[in-house]
Amino acid sequence: MRSTVITAVHARDVRFPLKPGEGVDAIHTNPQYAYAVTLLATNTSLRGTGLAFTLGAGTELVCDAIRMLAQPLEGREIEELMADFGRLTRQIADHPQMRWLGPHKGVVHLALASLTNACFDLWAKARGVPLWKLLLDLTPEAIMALLDLSYLEDVLTPSEAINMLYREMTHRNERAAILTQGYPGYDTSVGWFHYDDRQLIENARRAADAGFSAMKLKVGSPDPAHDIRRALLVRETVGRDVRIMLDANQQWTLPMALHACQELASMQPYWIEEPTHPDDVIGHQTLARSIAPLRLAVGEHLPNRVVFKNYMQANAAHFIQADCTRVGGVSEFITVSLLARRFNLPVAPHVGDMGQIHQHLTLFNRIALGHETVFLEYIPHLRDRFRYPAQVEDGVYRTPQEPGSSADLIDCT
Amino acid sequence: MRSTVITAVHARDVRFPLKPGEGVDAIHTNPQYAYAVTLLATNTSLRGTGLAFTLGAGTELVCDAIRMLAQPLEGREIEELMADFGRLTRQIADHPQMRWLGPHKGVVHLALASLTNACFDLWAKARGVPLWKLLLDLTPEAIMALLDLSYLEDVLTPSEAINMLYREMTHRNERAAILTQGYPGYDTSVGWFHYDDRQLIENARRAADAGFSAMKLKVGSPDPAHDIRRALLVRETVGRDVRIMLDANQQWTLPMALHACQELASMQPYWIEEPTHPDDVIGHQTLARSIAPLRLAVGEHLPNRVVFKNYMQANAAHFIQADCTRVGGVSEFITVSLLARRFNLPVAPHVGDMGQIHQHLTLFNRIALGHETVFLEYIPHLRDRFRYPAQVEDGVYRTPQEPGSSADLIDCT
Repeated sequence: MRSTVITAVHARDVRFPLKPGEGVDAIHTNPQYAYAVTLLATNTSLRGTGLAFTLGAGTELVCDAIRMLAQPLEGREIEELMADFGRLTRQIADHPQMRWLGPHKGVVHLALASLTNACFDLWAKARGVPLWKLLLDLTPEAIMALLDLSYLEDVLTPSEAINMLYREMTHRNERAAILTQGYPGYDTSVGWFHYDDRQLIENARRAADAGFSAMKLKVGSPDPAHDIRRALLVRETVGRDVRIMLDANQQWTLPMALHACQELASMQPYWIEEPTHPDDVIGHQTLARSIAPLRLAVGEHLPNRVVFKNYMQANAAHFIQADCTRVGGVSEFITVSLLARRFNLPVAPHVGDMGQIHQHLTLFNRIALGHETVFLEYIPHLRDRFRYPAQVEDGVYRTPQEPGSSADLIDCT
Repeated sequence: MRSTVITAVHARDVRFPLKPGEGVDAIHTNPQYAYAVTLLATNTSLRGTGLAFTLGAGTELVCDAIRMLAQPLEGREIEELMADFGRLTRQIADHPQMRWLGPHKGVVHLALASLTNACFDLWAKARGVPLWKLLLDLTPEAIMALLDLSYLEDVLTPSEAINMLYREMTHRNERAAILTQGYPGYDTSVGWFHYDDRQLIENARRAADAGFSAMKLKVGSPDPAHDIRRALLVRETVGRDVRIMLDANQQWTLPMALHACQELASMQPYWIEEPTHPDDVIGHQTLARSIAPLRLAVGEHLPNRVVFKNYMQANAAHFIQADCTRVGGVSEFITVSLLARRFNLPVAPHVGDMGQIHQHLTLFNRIALGHETVFLEYIPHLRDRFRYPAQVEDGVYRTPQEPGSSADLIDCT
């Protein structure tokens, strides 16, 4: 294998306008979809692409932070770099001055996500394999060398994690069928916040016709009756066999969430997502206890493994929606997935990457960690912007075969 | 009163080198002290100064975020602005695109802190009074109009907060003595992480001679025996009557913290500060239970009221170290102080502002909220950089009399 050396690290601020109504929820009233992109130039024709997801304004802050934190990557050979990546990721996350701006959250952590994801993308390209295959081919020890498990010692030590990985290895064959079957997707774009009834019904019907057995509706209206009416409308349209996720995008206070969840229970949602403020672990704990057997999905705004650990310890979430374009990249996504396995909780990523990278990671989670197969979010709005857009057919993600993490954007060099 | 209109909002990146060893702790090995400064220009000769504290690199990110978020302040008359400031602060915090970069944490929230603090500074200058007096002269309703209590409804509603403020009003006279006595300080600069034994003893003796009855020592060494030896050294030097705070600056894992706290208990520290990762509410809860009656101090890295609420609900902290240059400025500092009063917990701010603004806020907390008098951190390293440096005599902060929040820096215009 020819050695691949990172010769320069570039950051690009890439923003995509959306059509009216797309991406709009109860909190985010005017989104663009945007990426703070890390581009790794090398001594060969290979380029590494890493993404951190944003909603438009402020993406330049993340790009500036990428440039400030990039120095430890420059001049490094990719295999040698990844052999000890966990230590590097911790070194960047704990930059002695920039750490103050988090720690491990906000703009600086989004920058770490983008840098990290670019390294994984380049690594898989250098090996000529899709990211899922690269990860599956690693030994448990090599996986551990990618991770930073600090501050998790009370629930998961490195040796416990390695044991878990070895234990799961014995079950890999029976799980590999997912590679040919494909990982089930769910359609997030059925019910954006301002879609009217006609659009909602049409979208739900179209999603069901396209083979999706799960879809999402945005809630969090000031008038709970409005949410309930729309939820029932979708339920009537698609019938009892389709799973419907409800997403409040943090709009509710805890008292409002308690009330709304009780009202919405009758239409049997698959989960209630982001009911209230993402920092409110205890609030989610209270809510989870009160509305059982209704289940909560949380994670798109949780910045790091420590916060995820708290949610799991407090039984405050039932679906773990880590996003590798929000937490510190692929490394911390795997760390959170290990934690979730330890707590027997399914991982159903939020896909700031539109599912491009996460289609690889859910396959790894299923096969190597033994995670339950749930649903991977699918958002088609940026399909035409990716060089190898995810192939979703009959509601199922087809396993990607191109080398890398499928993160390359067209016209972003 | 002549009306004061904000005509422009400027941001300044101001960094101060420190002498060798100053500011160094177990995690922050190479700090500068720096501010992302908001300067409000007006139609008069008045200028508003707001501070967010950083450790050097990355301050420009906060300055850029200040510029991006400043628009709602431009052209506003200060009295009219502050009459409904709670709504404005929420509007900025929930910028529909920038919110994604937090929410309510990291670079964007530091920017909000700086903007907010500048508004309070300008407001007090426009009224020609020190900030503490401005705040004490407000009605409970006017105080509430400054705040955003959203996501606290499960523990503190606006009407409960107003009732609390009215109830405390009846005790104001007996508490006003603090204005003439001065608020007690503690000396943080006795035991930075790398100070050798000779320096440590000399500093501790000098602090005691200067009248301080409380002082801080940095711990968090890889070798707990090193910490214990130093702690006992300070205890021997100053005797049993001086309170000694120990500060681990997040360096310990939870198992290490459990061990170290047991070892350090014998020298009877006043508190153990930042034992482990600031996001780890459950970890602090476990620690607090295990080491009682030893008490924990937490807050310099907690970004917002929701996280503070969780710490209080979980009985995971005994001293609340909110910092108005970290949370969303004076407004959110007051909100956290109200919460702490509701939970009967003392507020002992971390002073990213070197105590300049917090000397006003602790007087307000004592007199208007009925908070217990504890100790206000004192760090002298930037004394010469402020136009009106805090006057600390005999270990006590002398009540500032100049109009504003005492945040003006020399040579920062």
